[in-house]
Amino acid sequence: MDHIIIGGVAGGMSAATRLRRLDEDARITVIERSGHVSFANCGLPYHVGGVIEDRESLLLQTPASLGRRFGLDVRVGTEAVRIDRERRVVVVRELATGAVSELPYDQVLLSPGARPVRPPIPGIERALSLRDIEDTDALVTASAPARTAVIIGGGFIGLELAENLTRRGIAVTVVEAADQVMAPLDPEMVAPVQDHLRANGVALRLGASVTAIGPDSVTLSSGEQLEADLVVAAVGVRPDTRLAEDAGLETGRLGGILVDSRFRTSDPRILAVGDAVEKRDALDGEQVLVPLANTANRQGRMAADVMAGLSAHDRPVLGTAIVGIFGLRVATTGWNEKRLVAAGRPHRVVHTHPSSHATYYPGAEEMSLKLLVDRDTDAILGAQGVGREGVDKRIDVIATAIAGGITASALADLELAYAPQFGSAKDPVNLLGYVAGNLRTGVTRSLQWHELDDALAAGAVLVDVRTAEEHAAGAIPGALLVPVDELRQRLDEIPPGPVVVHCEVGQRGHTAAQVLTHAGREARNLDGGYRTWHAGTSARKLVPVG
Amino acid sequence: MDHIIIGGVAGGMSAATRLRRLDEDARITVIERSGHVSFANCGLPYHVGGVIEDRESLLLQTPASLGRRFGLDVRVGTEAVRIDRERRVVVVRELATGAVSELPYDQVLLSPGARPVRPPIPGIERALSLRDIEDTDALVTASAPARTAVIIGGGFIGLELAENLTRRGIAVTVVEAADQVMAPLDPEMVAPVQDHLRANGVALRLGASVTAIGPDSVTLSSGEQLEADLVVAAVGVRPDTRLAEDAGLETGRLGGILVDSRFRTSDPRILAVGDAVEKRDALDGEQVLVPLANTANRQGRMAADVMAGLSAHDRPVLGTAIVGIFGLRVATTGWNEKRLVAAGRPHRVVHTHPSSHATYYPGAEEMSLKLLVDRDTDAILGAQGVGREGVDKRIDVIATAIAGGITASALADLELAYAPQFGSAKDPVNLLGYVAGNLRTGVTRSLQWHELDDALAAGAVLVDVRTAEEHAAGAIPGALLVPVDELRQRLDEIPPGPVVVHCEVGQRGHTAAQVLTHAGREARNLDGGYRTWHAGTSARKLVPVG
Ligand SMILES: Cc1cc2nc3c(=O)[nH]c(=O)nc-3n(C[C@H](O)[C@H](O)[C@H](O)COP(=O)(O)OP(=O)(O)OC[C@H]3O[C@@H](n4cnc5c(N)ncnc54)[C@H](O)[C@@H]3O)c2cc1C
Ligand SMILES: Cc1cc2nc3c(=O)[nH]c(=O)nc-3n(C[C@H](O)[C@H](O)[C@H](O)COP(=O)(O)OP(=O)(O)OC[C@H]3O[C@@H](n4cnc5c(N)ncnc54)[C@H](O)[C@@H]3O)c2cc1C
Ligand SMILES: CC(C)(COP(=O)(O)OP(=O)(O)OC[C@H]1O[C@@H](n2cnc3c(N)ncnc32)[C@H](O)[C@@H]1OP(=O)(O)O)[C@@H](O)C(=O)NCCC(=O)NCCS
Ligand SMILES: CC(C)(COP(=O)(O)OP(=O)(O)OC[C@H]1O[C@@H](n2cnc3c(N)ncnc32)[C@H](O)[C@@H]1OP(=O)(O)O)[C@@H](O)C(=O)NCCC(=O)NCCS
Repeated sequence: MDHIIIGGVAGGMSAATRLRRLDEDARITVIERSGHVSFANCGLPYHVGGVIEDRESLLLQTPASLGRRFGLDVRVGTEAVRIDRERRVVVVRELATGAVSELPYDQVLLSPGARPVRPPIPGIERALSLRDIEDTDALVTASAPARTAVIIGGGFIGLELAENLTRRGIAVTVVEAADQVMAPLDPEMVAPVQDHLRANGVALRLGASVTAIGPDSVTLSSGEQLEADLVVAAVGVRPDTRLAEDAGLETGRLGGILVDSRFRTSDPRILAVGDAVEKRDALDGEQVLVPLANTANRQGRMAADVMAGLSAHDRPVLGTAIVGIFGLRVATTGWNEKRLVAAGRPHRVVHTHPSSHATYYPGAEEMSLKLLVDRDTDAILGAQGVGREGVDKRIDVIATAIAGGITASALADLELAYAPQFGSAKDPVNLLGYVAGNLRTGVTRSLQWHELDDALAAGAVLVDVRTAEEHAAGAIPGALLVPVDELRQRLDEIPPGPVVVHCEVGQRGHTAAQVLTHAGREARNLDGGYRTWHAGTSARKLVPVG
Repeated sequence: MDHIIIGGVAGGMSAATRLRRLDEDARITVIERSGHVSFANCGLPYHVGGVIEDRESLLLQTPASLGRRFGLDVRVGTEAVRIDRERRVVVVRELATGAVSELPYDQVLLSPGARPVRPPIPGIERALSLRDIEDTDALVTASAPARTAVIIGGGFIGLELAENLTRRGIAVTVVEAADQVMAPLDPEMVAPVQDHLRANGVALRLGASVTAIGPDSVTLSSGEQLEADLVVAAVGVRPDTRLAEDAGLETGRLGGILVDSRFRTSDPRILAVGDAVEKRDALDGEQVLVPLANTANRQGRMAADVMAGLSAHDRPVLGTAIVGIFGLRVATTGWNEKRLVAAGRPHRVVHTHPSSHATYYPGAEEMSLKLLVDRDTDAILGAQGVGREGVDKRIDVIATAIAGGITASALADLELAYAPQFGSAKDPVNLLGYVAGNLRTGVTRSLQWHELDDALAAGAVLVDVRTAEEHAAGAIPGALLVPVDELRQRLDEIPPGPVVVHCEVGQRGHTAAQVLTHAGREARNLDGGYRTWHAGTSARKLVPVG
């Protein structure tokens, strides 16, 4: 059997090595356009920043090492230029020599990845992008003399680069067309991330776009000129479907290659995986693009199983992701609220601000969690976490819970490893389950930060149940201060009508809401407390520039 | 309604606060024998070691604060001495005054916890135990002048104390009757933990027992005398069932109070939770004792739901647990191999030694994981992890997977948050799924460390596929060195007969086993490689003392 694998990094090389382990006799050829295979894309920004000093450590394997260990014929600097499906050959060109040759195949696997989007801005030629080792080398070289940089795009890669260029002493501005960075997060979750970026010296221009790139500056839609020795375009990636389209393979409406659950394209001899393909969403079964390494590697390995004739079926994707930003960990899984709202999917929202581990043990750090829950089924629809230690753990646990069909309320029952250095007897994940369960059973009613204005306009009374000190340090306009510990004695001070209570994070508010409800009042607890309200309103107050 | 809660810490106080939130009108009285409620038992060892400097931070609440916030009548220094079920009163005695009174009840919740076992050794009066604040104060006082300490028992609390007394400059010896510390771990997993304890100055006496405690020493079964300014008994805990038994409530064969899935004892007006009760095991439904805080808190909260008339049902327990030992994280969930073997339950075993995060990103640390899998259903039966960063995360993810009914092979498909600082594109949990899947489908066959001797005796050839350098640094006696990258060329050097291959951790061995299998050889991969074999055999070599 002749197997040709196009693209020799995450999906492609995972497929090649697995395929070899399943079939010692097959001829397996890997065609890679760039000068390297099997490199650590995800580490590239950190080499730019000098965190990963040794460039070689990004090159996990070489054609030679893969030949020795796996008997693979790996050809770098070689482009697959055409798939001739009639004659079952892949036409390849050696880039150095221009030599063209034909490789016959029984099966082809496409893992060509995605290409950085290059927005059509005058002067865009000067903007660098980051996808491979060559890009990295170019960025390292260009950033050495640079004092200022503009990064177009505030997504994962844009922000990783913002951190890493800052690390090199460069003054960085991130220009983002949306009114927030990190689109997978909801606004109230992203607000502290933006504050943190600014606190670390990164300037943000939100709701702004670059209209022109000059030789040492960029111009924004607002007219503002920004100095820019270096310009990076990081506005996302687009599936690389050139080969597939030329070969007449079907692509989807999102621009990715269409495959079935066994990774077969419209030609069953040609499979495709990774960033280049459209996936099925775990929540609604619709097509989605999820350009992430976990998925690319998994699909590559599974496609090898298919190619070797084993039974294997793809799973729909949740899109669990994380990024480190100047020490903050920002992680998500599943859908965010924006998407649920847009899809009209009835949902409940829970915000908490728990500690990474028991507060009585030194070093505990606060994190913010958000859980999205199906209003009808109690299914978990998504989660977001921002903080430091332990954020990745909680999002991974929730992603696993989603995969296992554990409902939001049942998070309360998870037995998670507890000692005071590592968690809490009631882990943050358990607490999310408590709160979700209280909403589901109607023990509590809550109000979201963005619903407060309407509630107050409709005549609700807002009661701050924190201490006088906390109130003095920052309060929601119009809130009446009645500390929770005095609430039972001071019930008659609260004017008639529906009541919204709030505390700092939602926990005391919950107890206060119970007291009020039992006293016959219509009470709701401001979800996530002052903390979430403050983050949400500060995000909303950002006036888009341009 | 009059609710009396006996025991005011994890289970009891979680019940009391929840019950108040559900029922503002109930009279809720909490009776606590010790001088404190709602304290952080799990932090006590760290106060002894000075990590948690401030004793007050262990006292999460006081009777006064609980009165203010939750309208609870909390009585410390008060013992419940008898439950008169006929007359529905709890008889309580104020310890300071000896005053006895009766409290009528509609419902009682017992959360009296467990008591440290005091082995019947001559001189045991001198041994301290650690359960509450009073014990902690005594231990702090006694350890101040001490230079040497003997801890009887190498379980979680014994080892936490070993670390914390060492921190105070005391020379610690742990005496453990079993041939290993940390019973929940299998021997090959515990070996590095024992090495680490020794490397940090803790002396271990395994398979040894204390026969007498003298005024400044202890005597072991071997006759050895150990200096001991301080002696601590940490040989486990026993459910505190005195009250329950006196009241004629049913207890089980493990010595815990028997309750149904709604925490009702044999008297439906009396509920019980926490360390004092027997639980149902998540894997076989049998009764078990799991004296852990997560479970006690969860049960307490749930029992309040039952008391308030809500629908609530207990879940069976996995017993997920973790302990930090001089920087090592040691975590477990579900059953270990010893227990599976004892129960005759057919299972498969997987050992891996992955990195906490991508190796190309600085600071990655190796961990050891062990997964236990049902041979028939592919269900996950248990897992163990030893390492540093990220061990708790992986065990929590696996515990969640078990709860969600995710099979071992399906761990391969979990989408876990990946960026190079936090994990790998193929997360350690995914890799466990890969290996388990390979065993399930028969792609690979493996051999366990303790099966090697028999396999070799039966004529198998052992091939070390590591590099010459690795082989020189430590090898399994009799192994033939053929590095994996030369294997295809040197197949005929391998003598006939079945082959066992091994590498350092199992990964290259897997590829080598595939090469051999395809070459028509009967090949098995030594699970976990040299690393697991070495740990296992070193654990086995420990000659029990006494
Ligand atoms: C800077 C950066 C940081 C990232 N960080 C993360 C992260 O932290 N976490 C995460 O989950 N994901 C991250 N990703 C995404 C992750 O790297 C990708 O999802 C993954 O590499 C996709 O795998 P793939 O095999 O589909 O494509 P790729 O890994 O991109 O491999 C495709 C290869 O195919 C080659 N190719 C394309 N067409 C041809 C052709 N016609 N002939 C020959 N060769 C061809 C390309 O040269 C390319 O090398 C990051 C990506 C980048 C660029
Ligand atoms: C040193 C130490 C470290 C620990 N570390 C961990 C850890 O890291 N992780 C973990 O999960 N678990 C840990 N635990 C276990 C955890 O603390 C217990 O599982 C949990 O506290 C059990 O809750 P409980 O309510 O059943 O009992 P407890 O919390 O022990 O509360 C029972 C209370 O009842 C009182 N009482 C008993 N009888 C009477 C009576 N007749 N009248 C009045 N009062 C009475 C007792 O004085 C006691 O205070 C640790 C325990 C200790 C002692
Ligand atoms: C590394 C790479 C070449 C794949 O190589 P690989 O040998 O298939 O994969 P890994 O090194 O992860 O090892 C996994 C294999 O070893 C096996 N394995 C791992 N640990 C094992 C152990 N302890 N015991 C037995 N088997 C083990 C796994 O089962 C798996 O084999 P399988 O697929 O046959 O089941 C490919 O993934 C790659 O190029 N990665 C770099 C690019 C990339 O991923 N970029 C994006 C992220 S930065
Ligand atoms: C702390 C203690 C008194 C219980 O108090 P509690 O108020 O019930 O519990 P917590 O402080 O954990 O808060 C949990 C409650 O707040 C709610 N909550 C937490 N965060 C919230 C948020 N952001 N928004 C809304 N509600 C929130 C939870 O839903 C839960 O309420 P519920 O039970 O009505 O659902 C008790 O657990 C205790 O004594 N613990 C110390 C002893 C101990 O656990 N020892 C062993 C381990 S060291």
